[in-house]
Amino acid sequence: MTRGIDPRTGATVGPEIPDTTPAQVRAACSRAAQAAPWLAGLPFAERAELLAALGRALREHQDELCALADAETALGSPRLTGELARTAAQLDLFAEVLRDGAFCEATLDSPDPDAVPPHTDLRRMLVPLGPVAVFAASNFPFAFSVAGGDTASALAAGCPVVVKAHPGHPGLSVRTAEILTEALAAAGAPDGVLTLVHGEQAGRALVADPAVTAVGFTGSPGGGRALFDVAMSRPDPIPFYGELGSINPVVVTAAAAAARSGEIAEGLAGSAMLGSGQFCTKPGLVFVPSAAGLPQRVADKVAEATVTPLLTARIATGYREGLDRMLEVPGVRALLDGQASAADGHQVAAQVVTVDAQAFMANAAVLTEECFGPVTVVVSYSAPDELAAALALVPGALTGTLHAEPEDPDAAPAATALAARVGRLIHNGWPTGVAVTWSQHHGGPSPATTAVLHTSVGATAIRRFLRPLTYQDVPGHLLPAALRDGNPLGIPRRVDGKLTLGGVAGRGGTP
Amino acid sequence: MTRGIDPRTGATVGPEIPDTTPAQVRAACSRAAQAAPWLAGLPFAERAELLAALGRALREHQDELCALADAETALGSPRLTGELARTAAQLDLFAEVLRDGAFCEATLDSPDPDAVPPHTDLRRMLVPLGPVAVFAASNFPFAFSVAGGDTASALAAGCPVVVKAHPGHPGLSVRTAEILTEALAAAGAPDGVLTLVHGEQAGRALVADPAVTAVGFTGSPGGGRALFDVAMSRPDPIPFYGELGSINPVVVTAAAAAARSGEIAEGLAGSAMLGSGQFCTKPGLVFVPSAAGLPQRVADKVAEATVTPLLTARIATGYREGLDRMLEVPGVRALLDGQASAADGHQVAAQVVTVDAQAFMANAAVLTEECFGPVTVVVSYSAPDELAAALALVPGALTGTLHAEPEDPDAAPAATALAARVGRLIHNGWPTGVAVTWSQHHGGPSPATTAVLHTSVGATAIRRFLRPLTYQDVPGHLLPAALRDGNPLGIPRRVDGKLTLGGVAGRGGTP
Repeated sequence: MTRGIDPRTGATVGPEIPDTTPAQVRAACSRAAQAAPWLAGLPFAERAELLAALGRALREHQDELCALADAETALGSPRLTGELARTAAQLDLFAEVLRDGAFCEATLDSPDPDAVPPHTDLRRMLVPLGPVAVFAASNFPFAFSVAGGDTASALAAGCPVVVKAHPGHPGLSVRTAEILTEALAAAGAPDGVLTLVHGEQAGRALVADPAVTAVGFTGSPGGGRALFDVAMSRPDPIPFYGELGSINPVVVTAAAAAARSGEIAEGLAGSAMLGSGQFCTKPGLVFVPSAAGLPQRVADKVAEATVTPLLTARIATGYREGLDRMLEVPGVRALLDGQASAADGHQVAAQVVTVDAQAFMANAAVLTEECFGPVTVVVSYSAPDELAAALALVPGALTGTLHAEPEDPDAAPAATALAARVGRLIHNGWPTGVAVTWSQHHGGPSPATTAVLHTSVGATAIRRFLRPLTYQDVPGHLLPAALRDGNPLGIPRRVDGKLTLGGVAGRGGTP
Repeated sequence: MTRGIDPRTGATVGPEIPDTTPAQVRAACSRAAQAAPWLAGLPFAERAELLAALGRALREHQDELCALADAETALGSPRLTGELARTAAQLDLFAEVLRDGAFCEATLDSPDPDAVPPHTDLRRMLVPLGPVAVFAASNFPFAFSVAGGDTASALAAGCPVVVKAHPGHPGLSVRTAEILTEALAAAGAPDGVLTLVHGEQAGRALVADPAVTAVGFTGSPGGGRALFDVAMSRPDPIPFYGELGSINPVVVTAAAAAARSGEIAEGLAGSAMLGSGQFCTKPGLVFVPSAAGLPQRVADKVAEATVTPLLTARIATGYREGLDRMLEVPGVRALLDGQASAADGHQVAAQVVTVDAQAFMANAAVLTEECFGPVTVVVSYSAPDELAAALALVPGALTGTLHAEPEDPDAAPAATALAARVGRLIHNGWPTGVAVTWSQHHGGPSPATTAVLHTSVGATAIRRFLRPLTYQDVPGHLLPAALRDGNPLGIPRRVDGKLTLGGVAGRGGTP
């Protein structure tokens, strides 16, 4: 049983929502499998129109959805309105990806008797995997939830979706699913293209269900690892795309600290406190030169920040416990009064923790654990060598940020060290705020994700739900349109080793 | 301890080769990690030249290598000479992939304050993962071994390789590694770009080694699953690209059987008996209309085939046991005398097994297990409906083959059913013989592989060993050449959502 909770008051919101039974999960997956051929067979242009219709449906219900979201998350109207707009725009981006057509990687090789070995006609493209399970996150009730990036990219790929609702916003999840389901039905979609399930047991059953072919997950390292293990211990293991949490290291060079420590302190505090620190891209571990006095400057700025109640009681408890573990480490100091551990319910206090590089290196395991909430750890290093040694202990992360100056001798080594362990390298900026573009990458080496090759945000997120299929000597009437002679869809294709851009046929014109 | 065995005589070949100790594996992985930045930093054109040099080295030592290979595998000179040529050509293909440059998926988005959400400068490309473990196969001592597709694609990606030698051709493996290592050294590569290890324990240590970032494996379902489990139970699970065995279903429609049953029987027998049935693409399960008398025709052709000694004693034993399991199934008949179970050592007898569709469906689990060696299972179906029901029980496979006639009403349903469960769909041909091209896909759904998104053959095999990295507002001097303003490499790039072909700069000209 799930029920919405208002983080501001602790009061319940909306009706009780029963857990989905294992039999109901099985039925949902079975319906998804039955709907799969319809969605897979939809021409790219029509699938694009379907996604655009979902985006319009979200926008049409903006006020209702944002009110529901605010009641269950306390994230506030401006943030939620922006997030809904971004979520709808994300559906539009995948519609654009489908119209462009390059995503299917159409590749044609003519027969070649002189090749080593010789070959006949070969044509390759990416095709949908099948039903996908999506686990919604707590901290983005739109962008990483029922209508979020995992759902959008799976549907774009041609894969039906079964979403496991996050218990932090169950009422919003139900209503979002209703709105999407109505829009799907209006577009002629059969039952089963999108289904919502509730409850932890339902989530495990979903990952184990034989009809499910891949999983998208955003959430905690513990929960993610448990479901990853379910996926990998199936008789037929399936891809598990888990985004599990990230420490997001920042390096401030001596030159940058000397030139603009005030600006850096302000920017860092703003980024770390955004959404009360409940961003997976929160800068959680910051390396600063010891001479610059940056830790105190950061603390002064963080002290000015407003901390709203955290999303769930479990997150608030996890934050207090994580903070306690760090503060037990020898050499670690809290720079703010905090009372973080004493506060009640969803409300916690912000904190800035500081430690020197030697003490950090002696206890890196504890100090590189993500502490989800309004805290950042500032590590003071004495020299570039010490910084390099400390960076070597930083685990895989979604982002790495470098603050450096022009012709800064410390910039290149720090950039190289960060690039080796992160999915996005930011220069003189901040990691929070994940743009939804063709070039975005929101992923990274373990432990940040369970699938280092893939992204959960940006155009290439679609790749997670597609598999290659090569057709050998298959006559035209049995080939998908993307691979037929004459390029009827007008999409980019690689022909006999040469990339070609295709025409405009697929973009609204005639073949 | 490993030692080569001549399959023809059972005699030992070459000296004893000691197992690599866990400490030696650790040292090899550590050297690979140290060599990684050098290989990753090599410009695409220079890395292409390195691969081409490896191909030349193989060709220069063709006679020596083929003689060694024949002594340890008995595959015969024509086949081995052809396989070496294909292996060298494979290195050339990856050199071409590097010169082309599209593999790195360079994608640039200009700052856009009007986007939802707004964004600054973002540039994405694929970068090398890090050291890769490669497990060589028994049945292709060149193409899927030390210098094979996994090694070629990993080096092309910029990843050092530690190869676990297959015990079926240990002497050849050592000599191949020496030749590659000399060529690498001549090209200025540091120690650690390629290392060979021996022994099962070394293999497990390799998959568990913290420096290893991905595994390429070709081999048995049992061995593959055990190593997959090691990879997935690491604290930081890594991608495991296992090609584990495949039943490779074939469907012959009623019309095709009526039009050319003699040709089909001959083609099937030739494909199934190629290399004494020791191909991962062997057509192992063939659905034929019951009226056409095809099982006996196939058996007559198979009876004419020459069966050479199998590669290893373990494979021969596995073949006999697998055949026994099938022959115990009610309704299954052996069409040849065989004496398969009575034969000694590496020598076995060919077999054709037949069963009707009802008996097949009652025992699909046993009859869809790959039996590696010279046998194929022919299933007689009475009508298209029965065929569809039987096909629904066929597990994931590398290939599916359809024999149909023009305007054949049974073609499309069978093609759709096959396409849903295979990585390559062949029309009126045979699955053995895997061309090495841009459009090739050698992979498929579980249980054929452990990574349905990826291929072990063809240009896109490189994708397995690359991860995305996005640069946000990073100045030109800290960017890789592939992402710099002005496209200095002249490679295909997607700029502000539009695919561009780039110039010829990267193909030997000047920027």
